[in-house]
Amino acid sequence: MSKQFVWPIRVYYEDTDAGGVVYHSQYLNFLERARTEWLRSLGFDQSVMAKTHQLIFVVRKLSIQYRKPAVFDDAIEIVSSVTAMSRCTITFNQKIMRNNEMLTETEVEIASIDHHHFRPVAIPEIIKSAMNGV
Amino acid sequence: MSKQFVWPIRVYYEDTDAGGVVYHSQYLNFLERARTEWLRSLGFDQSVMAKTHQLIFVVRKLSIQYRKPAVFDDAIEIVSSVTAMSRCTITFNQKIMRNNEMLTETEVEIASIDHHHFRPVAIPEIIKSAMNGV
Amino acid sequence: MSKQFVWPIRVYYEDTDAGGVVYHSQYLNFLERARTEWLRSLGFDQSVMAKTHQLIFVVRKLSIQYRKPAVFDDAIEIVSSVTAMSRCTITFNQKIMRNNEMLTETEVEIASIDHHHFRPVAIPEIIKSAMNGV
Amino acid sequence: MSKQFVWPIRVYYEDTDAGGVVYHSQYLNFLERARTEWLRSLGFDQSVMAKTHQLIFVVRKLSIQYRKPAVFDDAIEIVSSVTAMSRCTITFNQKIMRNNEMLTETEVEIASIDHHHFRPVAIPEIIKSAMNGV
Repeated sequence: MSKQFVWPIRVYYEDTDAGGVVYHSQYLNFLERARTEWLRSLGFDQSVMAKTHQLIFVVRKLSIQYRKPAVFDDAIEIVSSVTAMSRCTITFNQKIMRNNEMLTETEVEIASIDHHHFRPVAIPEIIKSAMNGV
Repeated sequence: MSKQFVWPIRVYYEDTDAGGVVYHSQYLNFLERARTEWLRSLGFDQSVMAKTHQLIFVVRKLSIQYRKPAVFDDAIEIVSSVTAMSRCTITFNQKIMRNNEMLTETEVEIASIDHHHFRPVAIPEIIKSAMNGV
Repeated sequence: MSKQFVWPIRVYYEDTDAGGVVYHSQYLNFLERARTEWLRSLGFDQSVMAKTHQLIFVVRKLSIQYRKPAVFDDAIEIVSSVTAMSRCTITFNQKIMRNNEMLTETEVEIASIDHHHFRPVAIPEIIKSAMNGV
Repeated sequence: MSKQFVWPIRVYYEDTDAGGVVYHSQYLNFLERARTEWLRSLGFDQSVMAKTHQLIFVVRKLSIQYRKPAVFDDAIEIVSSVTAMSRCTITFNQKIMRNNEMLTETEVEIASIDHHHFRPVAIPEIIKSAMNGV
């Protein structure tokens, strides 16, 4: 069974819009920060992976439901888990929480590609195992 | 049948990331610019609607497929059409094109809410009619 | 004499551009995060100040020198100090450091204004004293 | 004497913050769009220059004064002129105007560098001549 990774984020002015709430595309940035920090917490720095393996992760598809808005100064948490894996992709479920309220829910598929040719490459088994908590 | 609205956008440095391509959340900004300009082309300025009707549009849910990346200096086009309407929501299909290549495809549901109380309000019939090209 | 406040920031993909480095306007966001966290660390939440005192801070002028670029995955630090204060303004010096290297140096003047009328208002003495470390 | 270049920009939700105005770092993005379009209007595409000459432009220093805020839906204009040139740098004055009101004024120094080694390189004379309107 998949592990869960929780990453705290603070909402700043830069994240908000004139509607008084976090701008809708900004949540995607929060989600990527959480995926990046999950990898880092397992010992994988993407800057190292890009240099040594020419491997980068890109978002292939994403669906998000906006339930309640986050506002300036909010302390929120990104709760991430892996729901599927294939040779070259990982699918995450990511919830943005403010205390016990779910603000947004996202399903996002990430693909591993070659940095130079933008072609799919296999995700190293060591990363998959680490994320699955095996 | 729904009209189609085409809006051209130029890709600047600010839109790109160190992978050399447009950052994945930035496409959502492009899509909103196109929806805003469609409304404006029909005579509806959202700043006026917010002041006179306390009505603002928010993104309720969105799914996007990333097929090919846009890069710095690209001249792209957002091709938008309406696929569904309800009392308080409009659903759009929006394709980002570079010449005849489709780069991303998105389904996005927008809700009309009251600016102060964040509660759903009916979308004025005059807007629905204008978007439907009736 | 003014205190110093140090705030750590991690560079994510969203902060970079196709040149492979942090996009030049993004440093300004980092600097504001540091000013916000300094205030918070002294007990002042800007969301509370906006609601209870109708007081918000805005940037009046700013000058920045870019010496070396930050790149993806960098762990940087914002080192902030106060260099001048007037009735309605605070001037900060803010350096962005990567270990012992200075990447950017900024002088920024912040003004305290009334949220509704956008007119200058006096900065509460309690905030000035706290920042001065008196 | 230097030419002047005027570039129109529309303010979208993505550009604003919860204070109801354009977020202060976003003006820097507007300014770069104007510089990019000035070069393009003279026949120089930066993506081509990066590929064929390994030459990219970076911001070396910048000072900006914020006088009045732009708000959502504003139609603004960036008025740019060249105030100085050296072997590897160009200094611009850039004003953001809304009708006859000046919202911000900026002095920005751009340097021409080698894309791979990040070292200063001479700006091609053909670009300098074109910008000077000689």
